[in-house]
Amino acid sequence: MIDFVFQNPAKIIFGRDALSHLGEEVLHYSNKVLLVYGGGSVKRNGLFTQVMEILNSHHVTVWELSGIVPNPRLSRVYEGIDICRRNEIGLVLALGGGSAIDTAKAIVNGVPYAGDVWDFYCGKAQPKEVLPLGTILTIPAAGSEMSYSCVITNENGMLKRGYNSITHVPKFSILNPEWSFSLPPYQTACGCVDIIAHMMERYFTHVEHVELTDRLITAGIKTVLNNSPTVMEKPDDYDARAEIMWAGALAHNTLLNTGRLGDWGSHKLEHELSATYDIAHGAGLAIIFPAWMKYATNQHPKKIVQFAVDIFDVPLDFGSKTEIALEGIRRLETFYQSLGMPIRLSEADIVDCDYTALVNRALPTEESVVGEYIKLHRQDMVEIYKLAE
Amino acid sequence: MIDFVFQNPAKIIFGRDALSHLGEEVLHYSNKVLLVYGGGSVKRNGLFTQVMEILNSHHVTVWELSGIVPNPRLSRVYEGIDICRRNEIGLVLALGGGSAIDTAKAIVNGVPYAGDVWDFYCGKAQPKEVLPLGTILTIPAAGSEMSYSCVITNENGMLKRGYNSITHVPKFSILNPEWSFSLPPYQTACGCVDIIAHMMERYFTHVEHVELTDRLITAGIKTVLNNSPTVMEKPDDYDARAEIMWAGALAHNTLLNTGRLGDWGSHKLEHELSATYDIAHGAGLAIIFPAWMKYATNQHPKKIVQFAVDIFDVPLDFGSKTEIALEGIRRLETFYQSLGMPIRLSEADIVDCDYTALVNRALPTEESVVGEYIKLHRQDMVEIYKLAE
Repeated sequence: MIDFVFQNPAKIIFGRDALSHLGEEVLHYSNKVLLVYGGGSVKRNGLFTQVMEILNSHHVTVWELSGIVPNPRLSRVYEGIDICRRNEIGLVLALGGGSAIDTAKAIVNGVPYAGDVWDFYCGKAQPKEVLPLGTILTIPAAGSEMSYSCVITNENGMLKRGYNSITHVPKFSILNPEWSFSLPPYQTACGCVDIIAHMMERYFTHVEHVELTDRLITAGIKTVLNNSPTVMEKPDDYDARAEIMWAGALAHNTLLNTGRLGDWGSHKLEHELSATYDIAHGAGLAIIFPAWMKYATNQHPKKIVQFAVDIFDVPLDFGSKTEIALEGIRRLETFYQSLGMPIRLSEADIVDCDYTALVNRALPTEESVVGEYIKLHRQDMVEIYKLAE
Repeated sequence: MIDFVFQNPAKIIFGRDALSHLGEEVLHYSNKVLLVYGGGSVKRNGLFTQVMEILNSHHVTVWELSGIVPNPRLSRVYEGIDICRRNEIGLVLALGGGSAIDTAKAIVNGVPYAGDVWDFYCGKAQPKEVLPLGTILTIPAAGSEMSYSCVITNENGMLKRGYNSITHVPKFSILNPEWSFSLPPYQTACGCVDIIAHMMERYFTHVEHVELTDRLITAGIKTVLNNSPTVMEKPDDYDARAEIMWAGALAHNTLLNTGRLGDWGSHKLEHELSATYDIAHGAGLAIIFPAWMKYATNQHPKKIVQFAVDIFDVPLDFGSKTEIALEGIRRLETFYQSLGMPIRLSEADIVDCDYTALVNRALPTEESVVGEYIKLHRQDMVEIYKLAE
């Protein structure tokens, strides 16, 4: 186990009655709120109306930033920062999934910063101050409701970039599994893949003696594996939705990487893909992760083997280390397929892809590397994309 | 899963180099500190000197409240409150295990409160303000370094009482597994029992559909079971000490009871025991928990059976539900014995105990109950004490 600092002050309000806390939580910070959301689903399922009624009844003045899309764009962040500054807004409230929340995260960090908020994503500056942020989560997937992470796409070059900061952790997040009942099956499936991927990135580590976190990650992944078929068959199964929603928050709140170093190469590979092709992040991960695991098996089979045994119950006498690892990967692919996910680039209609362009954007120089469990140079990334064809 | 609110803002600084953060963390709050500690071990192993050197080099003025004993006393809390008020101290720093930390918790809550701090423990008042609290943990056991809990014994009637409040959560806690190397085997064992007990109390619930937290608790308990023999044999095994220390904090930080209701009857039974006989809390739990589980098996075997299967790998075809449950309890007892723990009152030299006196103190009226998985009235408590003879 390596030294670590762990802190996650987010207040999680979870359950059927969670929204009843909204007014009080908001007024704890401000009566001037910027509400950031996508549009379609929260208006269709009535949640938007409910939220507005609560805010109105608490005499909260609301500005709106709507129409946030997946792989959220920097231009909308600038727009939100501008609204906040002009109106002296005291709280940004995200309503939706990772895209609305990440847009709101970028806004709350950008408002008090004199420079360009994109500086944070280029490593040119670090946020010192932040506006308070609250979230109302409707899509369990990104884990953004409790995470240090924020990923934004700069349309100027379609650069999809993320950075981690405690200033991204919301003051409060309101989670009601019922809001995920109306998610389309494809989006539900993408969410399950994303949640599992956040735990897998942390699972694959070279750090030794991480038994507790290995076991906690295994607990989280197995819970999502076990409840995913239920929510695909019965979208309104509260308990299965609740297991997945809570697992989604814990998957990415930094608890599961205490004392260890995660890999994150697969996320980098996927980010380049979805920035270019605008496919859902979860679908991209279902394509990339098996390919990454096959590549990693050749270099460092240890943790891939342990994954096969711990998570997919591949017997230790199944065969050689490589055979055990590949059987675990096969079972993971079968699971993805059972959710209707693509597991190859071709299944997502990504053909004749210019891998070099993707790779050069991810790795500015020949010497650049991504990943921790296995270090990926440009050529490694190309090889993994090819394995995913 | 039931609705819940989860929040734990404690900053955990963990590892071999953790103490290097002390000066900066302290000065974030104040340069006037009350240091609360026991005495013997932290002076013998040099940690006290190290801490004082760091505080001195950061120009922090230190007042001391030393000689805190297990089952910490209210009189020392009063003393600490008085020192803080007279000297306008801005941070209380606990150095040690649960007793030093709980004393410090009571002090930070008592200082800004105009009434008697004992009011909080009688349910007469709730804290609104609190002085900042930091901890340096040397004994993994109570989980107090990250918990909402605080247990204090009032010498006037030997009343051992606890209450939970977010105002008990430390601002920061510094954990270095090396500091537990010099713990005597008995205290190491008591700590392991206590940590497991905190997870067991949460495991035994009537709430259905708690798969994620069931799995997380199982992960935590199995980690401690697996690493306890190592630390008993090799007290300076850093990795095993680290697994136990981190498990100890997570066991009691409220994560593991999200969406479920724990029992806590065994803790109540044990508190009466240790308040009267002044035995170590861990030793008391090793005596009480198997007796409680036997009693619970008769009323609601379900979760006791699941415990036997999940934690101690008792095969599902071992026998009847009762036989599976009792085999799980037998394996738990065997584990306790392997650590040198007593598993019967007689083994702790507690004989001819006046159970009625203990029970009447715990339950003021015939109608009073403790426990959640099984509700205990006075007669139930007596029966469980008898099962522990």
